[in-house]
Amino acid sequence: MTAEETRRRRSLASVRAQVEALLHADALAQAVHEAGTPGIAAPELDAALRGLVDALHPADFADLLETLPSEDRLVVWRASTGKRDGQVLLEVDDAVRAGLVADMDDVELLAAAAGLDPDEVADLIGELPAARGRRLLVGLTPEQRVRVQSALAWDEDQVGALMDFEMVTLREDVSLAVVLRYLRRFDALPSQTDKLFVVNDDGVLTGVLPLGRLLVHGPATSVREVMLTDVNTFQPEDDADQAAQAFERYDLVSAPVVDGAGRLVGRLTVDEIVDRIRAQSESARLSRAGLSGTEDIFAPVTRSVRNRWAWLAINLVTAFIASRVIGVFEGSIERLVALATLMPIVAGIGGNAGNQTITMIVRAMALDRLGARATRRLLRKELGVAVINGLLWGGVIGVVAGAIYASVPLGAVMTAAMTLNLLLAALMGVLIPTTMRRLGRDPALGSSVMITFVTDSGGFFIFLGLATLFLV
Amino acid sequence: MTAEETRRRRSLASVRAQVEALLHADALAQAVHEAGTPGIAAPELDAALRGLVDALHPADFADLLETLPSEDRLVVWRASTGKRDGQVLLEVDDAVRAGLVADMDDVELLAAAAGLDPDEVADLIGELPAARGRRLLVGLTPEQRVRVQSALAWDEDQVGALMDFEMVTLREDVSLAVVLRYLRRFDALPSQTDKLFVVNDDGVLTGVLPLGRLLVHGPATSVREVMLTDVNTFQPEDDADQAAQAFERYDLVSAPVVDGAGRLVGRLTVDEIVDRIRAQSESARLSRAGLSGTEDIFAPVTRSVRNRWAWLAINLVTAFIASRVIGVFEGSIERLVALATLMPIVAGIGGNAGNQTITMIVRAMALDRLGARATRRLLRKELGVAVINGLLWGGVIGVVAGAIYASVPLGAVMTAAMTLNLLLAALMGVLIPTTMRRLGRDPALGSSVMITFVTDSGGFFIFLGLATLFLV
Repeated sequence: MTAEETRRRRSLASVRAQVEALLHADALAQAVHEAGTPGIAAPELDAALRGLVDALHPADFADLLETLPSEDRLVVWRASTGKRDGQVLLEVDDAVRAGLVADMDDVELLAAAAGLDPDEVADLIGELPAARGRRLLVGLTPEQRVRVQSALAWDEDQVGALMDFEMVTLREDVSLAVVLRYLRRFDALPSQTDKLFVVNDDGVLTGVLPLGRLLVHGPATSVREVMLTDVNTFQPEDDADQAAQAFERYDLVSAPVVDGAGRLVGRLTVDEIVDRIRAQSESARLSRAGLSGTEDIFAPVTRSVRNRWAWLAINLVTAFIASRVIGVFEGSIERLVALATLMPIVAGIGGNAGNQTITMIVRAMALDRLGARATRRLLRKELGVAVINGLLWGGVIGVVAGAIYASVPLGAVMTAAMTLNLLLAALMGVLIPTTMRRLGRDPALGSSVMITFVTDSGGFFIFLGLATLFLV
Repeated sequence: MTAEETRRRRSLASVRAQVEALLHADALAQAVHEAGTPGIAAPELDAALRGLVDALHPADFADLLETLPSEDRLVVWRASTGKRDGQVLLEVDDAVRAGLVADMDDVELLAAAAGLDPDEVADLIGELPAARGRRLLVGLTPEQRVRVQSALAWDEDQVGALMDFEMVTLREDVSLAVVLRYLRRFDALPSQTDKLFVVNDDGVLTGVLPLGRLLVHGPATSVREVMLTDVNTFQPEDDADQAAQAFERYDLVSAPVVDGAGRLVGRLTVDEIVDRIRAQSESARLSRAGLSGTEDIFAPVTRSVRNRWAWLAINLVTAFIASRVIGVFEGSIERLVALATLMPIVAGIGGNAGNQTITMIVRAMALDRLGARATRRLLRKELGVAVINGLLWGGVIGVVAGAIYASVPLGAVMTAAMTLNLLLAALMGVLIPTTMRRLGRDPALGSSVMITFVTDSGGFFIFLGLATLFLV
């Protein structure tokens, strides 16, 4: 960590410590909690907190809020001066934002939105309860409202929802000297500006002028001579993930967004793309564990229960069905109790192997590397892997089980059941995601629950069925 | 998808179709496969392939190679002219790269490296077998070798391994007019240049001049007046993930890397950061399913078996231990076979709930949001969630089980066992990742296997133990 970084981190940590000290100094905390409305009750606390947090970068302030328990968080939030409240609201987690917004009245929310760009206001409205979002929209100036509404027209998975409107545009018939003079009239260029957009009289994009090219060519050169015409462009209705892949692939910093007629309507920037990539990988991770949204780790117990119940309910149903499969073979288990002991091994390893296959395939699909015709080839390979693993690990566990229960036939049934369940896992591990894709659904969602269900029920059925046929 | 994007995609798809058609045209394919050494046997095929792939962007060529089955892949690779081979090698998957490199001799590899920057050569060497990497290093020019070796000195998780050396530096006492004249002597600015670095006579970084500021200020202004001195800097030994978080948080496009004395030694760019974020989320996803590396979906069966065996072996051991827990209670199961049927439900739901807790905590840790003192508070919350879920879902399944087996005591034991196993899941779901972090290990690795082991063995023990005490 460099001196700079250390300084930043240390200052954030020290602000956090000071905030906590302020909040938990006995006398003050007492006053705050007794008064119930801390914003009014403890002006000197507010002033002290304000002094601390106003010096923070909005992202750092957001971080501080996220790490505080919810009651402390509101005290700090109410103390902040509010100039950058909009920015902070955009930076915090969904769960934290909901709490902060619920604590603000409409006037405060409008004041927070006033400091934001139209695309950011649209992002914020997208995160608000519908009624509050509508009231916020009504409070905007007419010009603001038009832009915000145009950004709101797009789904959050579309480029239109990620684009901003801070484009610097040029005509192609001017010289670079004119461009340089024109740029000096700005107070500052929009952040993440690595290229200027060249448009004709109809607003149609005809090329881009990267700042690097502007700077290395002589002032007498015309824009037309140095602009690039082979441009990565996007349309507002494009899929945001595909845009993110293009940014990654072609190392873009910004890119123009055009409408169907080629007219420039906005731009995409890499900071939005980075946020998107991170958010996507987060939500994939959470949804795999059945968490429906980001959960504030200090959320009230009831909210956590709500966030997690659906997944547990689904798993309860699948576990119950698998249990009924066992129920069919209760007669066999009564005669040979070792079956009850060994059956979870067959089911469990099948589930692990199936999840490996699915993870690999879903990844290949996300990277667009699995052609439609490849399914058969892939299936052959996965079945081959399953046979080897089944004979290998099934063999090991078969020998161990056979030794423990002094029964060669039991060991043989164990090995056979392991191999068959791994084959089932491979078959379904390929078919589940490919079928989901064919049906137009996201193969990353739910595949894991399904494969576990199949390998549990199937594993119990195969093992207990073989045992019933050959052992009891 | 815009016209531009559609054109790009269509051209890549069409190249792929043409390549496949060329390779599988019967006569040619015959010649290729009979000759065994396609590079020599079918010059007209090579020429046709070369014409197709040489027009592709390196990232697109890499994509094409990844989607081809391995034998076709080598034919296409041998046909390419090789000018951009280094770039392509950097873009492809580890598994694919290994195959391509194994097919190249040292001279070809050196030629491919010649088209790369020193930091890229270092990346490439990091991916090669050690002996080949050393031979490549020896083949470089002395100047190249020094820079490559300095990049190689860093671990792949350090900033030093991600940085490049393409900095444009200035002195602070010159005017912007001089800067503009100086920049015109370049053929092109390095990609991802959004700021110039200001250094003193000792090479110490004193500030940065964003291109945006250079362009909006008058030519007579001095660099000192407009440069920024509050700069996000990194050191080569910094953690790459923390650097990625800083890029995300402060919306950086490039940032200077300095040594302990503040001397400028390189720069970080957002394209490397984007690749890093993506690679990290990929490898986390793969490791959660126990895949030790990215696996080429068309890899030979034996390689897939090797990639997946360790995970299956670990799970086999944990499943075996859980099975021995059941073995202890075989007497009870013989007397009441319903226990065998119901026990997987208790174990399974415990595993799901434990994984939810762990996912949430690991995420909070990765985002640096879980203070050391928060553990107790978090534990209280998770135990609260467990009690509610246990009584709720345990109650539901207890009623159902009691009805199926016409036994109220059995239903009551089921509910009690579910609640206790969910409490165990919550306790271990908090303790496993926090303990791993305290021991300095990555809580994302292995937590899931451990919690599943605990909830399986624990669930069987709790349910069968309660049943033995109260039912049989």
